[in-house]
Amino acid sequence: MKKIRAAIVGYGNIGRYTLDALLAAPDFEVAGIVRRNPADRDNIPAEIPVVASIKDLNDVDVAILATPTRQVEKHAKEILSLGINTVDSFDIHTSIPELRKTLGKVAKEHNTVSIISAGWDPGSDSVVRTLMQAIAPEGITYTNFGPGRSMGHTVAVKAIEGVKDALSMTIPTGTGIHRRMVYIELLPGYELEKVAAAIKADAYFASDETHVIAVDSVDALNDVGHGVNLVRKGVSGKTHNQLFEFDMKINNPALTGQVLVCCARAAMRQAPGCYTMIEIPVIDLLPGDRDEHIAHLV
Amino acid sequence: MKKIRAAIVGYGNIGRYTLDALLAAPDFEVAGIVRRNPADRDNIPAEIPVVASIKDLNDVDVAILATPTRQVEKHAKEILSLGINTVDSFDIHTSIPELRKTLGKVAKEHNTVSIISAGWDPGSDSVVRTLMQAIAPEGITYTNFGPGRSMGHTVAVKAIEGVKDALSMTIPTGTGIHRRMVYIELLPGYELEKVAAAIKADAYFASDETHVIAVDSVDALNDVGHGVNLVRKGVSGKTHNQLFEFDMKINNPALTGQVLVCCARAAMRQAPGCYTMIEIPVIDLLPGDRDEHIAHLV
Repeated sequence: MKKIRAAIVGYGNIGRYTLDALLAAPDFEVAGIVRRNPADRDNIPAEIPVVASIKDLNDVDVAILATPTRQVEKHAKEILSLGINTVDSFDIHTSIPELRKTLGKVAKEHNTVSIISAGWDPGSDSVVRTLMQAIAPEGITYTNFGPGRSMGHTVAVKAIEGVKDALSMTIPTGTGIHRRMVYIELLPGYELEKVAAAIKADAYFASDETHVIAVDSVDALNDVGHGVNLVRKGVSGKTHNQLFEFDMKINNPALTGQVLVCCARAAMRQAPGCYTMIEIPVIDLLPGDRDEHIAHLV
Repeated sequence: MKKIRAAIVGYGNIGRYTLDALLAAPDFEVAGIVRRNPADRDNIPAEIPVVASIKDLNDVDVAILATPTRQVEKHAKEILSLGINTVDSFDIHTSIPELRKTLGKVAKEHNTVSIISAGWDPGSDSVVRTLMQAIAPEGITYTNFGPGRSMGHTVAVKAIEGVKDALSMTIPTGTGIHRRMVYIELLPGYELEKVAAAIKADAYFASDETHVIAVDSVDALNDVGHGVNLVRKGVSGKTHNQLFEFDMKINNPALTGQVLVCCARAAMRQAPGCYTMIEIPVIDLLPGDRDEHIAHLV
């Protein structure tokens, strides 16, 4: 059976875990890795080409975009135009419909498939959220994130004067409300109280309960564990008090890398166009024999 | 917007809850109810036709089969041959691949769609199980049912000599192992000890921890609440200890009725053939605007 040839575009944290997932997948072959400085091979196995442009790789079926989220659109457009499918974990929730429209047009023009926002939230959580909404159409779903670090909030703290290094942790307090635990290393000559006040006044933190704590080393707190608790109480037909809960505690980049690989596989099975994960049958995420999956998983 | 015209075939417990779900759905119209004795209207609203054959109803788009599971194949074949889509909650896990094949052939011949095993397990649980398997490809998933009554086990107990009425409850003890709590009303002249021994020797109970308790009234224990706890610990890429859990506590027939209606809707959106729920995008289960769902649920 012919393997799917995948390229990884971008080789940061997500790119590394994506490579792990590709190497563990029985139906994939790594066509190569695209990064700004291809001379920097890190610990990439010698048999995997590292190049500056995807055009330098042969027979790529699908490109997994492990770039910063704001670069996804540019890369996806270019790569779809080359006749190569793309997958990304674009995570700006409010911009997803627009990205889907834009890439859908390009994908159809070039007879390719793009699957966007294929991480865990947006991503696998979206599938569970949609299922819960369908089977109890009236009710409220709460998405409770964490405990785990928030990249966006961490970047916001780092931009504040007096902060040498920072980590913003998202702590779920239930009903979709989150506490922010901000750990900072102060630059010499700055006072915790004043810096903390500036952080709490920032738009990222102004409406949340925020605690700012000075530490000697932010690096010493490093842990990529994260989690989510999705909970819905709703009505099926006329029957109230239907209770649903989805909970996970995971290594964040490892799960993102794995979901990207699942969707790279699914991209090979869709008609040309752009999709989010809720538009794809879950069976398409799996390698192997469909009849066997139906026998064992249904 | 034209509504989907659905018929309910069979009007027992599941049929009643299916009617609730249809009446609550914004995009459905009840074409009618098919039952053996159409003169028996129960409390069916006067404007809904009750008939002995689906051929007596007009313009049915989809038939929701709320018949006993062993009658599903016969009814589905007949109705698909009339050019009408079908949905069922066929629940004999081991026979699903065969039913899918048989109905798939009939459905394609008559340009119709059949969605089978559309309940909660098999059904919505299958979607979650498949998703968990995909995003942590190595590992073990445990499906823990209950507490709730098991129809199959209850029927098995009722067939044992000396039993007047019975209820078998499934109690999860973790790692997919279940305890059976069997409540029986004894017929006069029978001893609990002997009847209990016969129950424990039955193939349905022989390999499970089983407790048999005599009660004055089985009816007094009546509760259609049920539940499931799906749990997976697995590996994403090379990263172990990824933890996932799906938990629900629900009114059993109400959830089944709602899932059937969701899949009746989804049947209108698939190419001719027979499908299980893991082969259908979850967005197809929802009424309303797809772009809005993508904006709010992804």
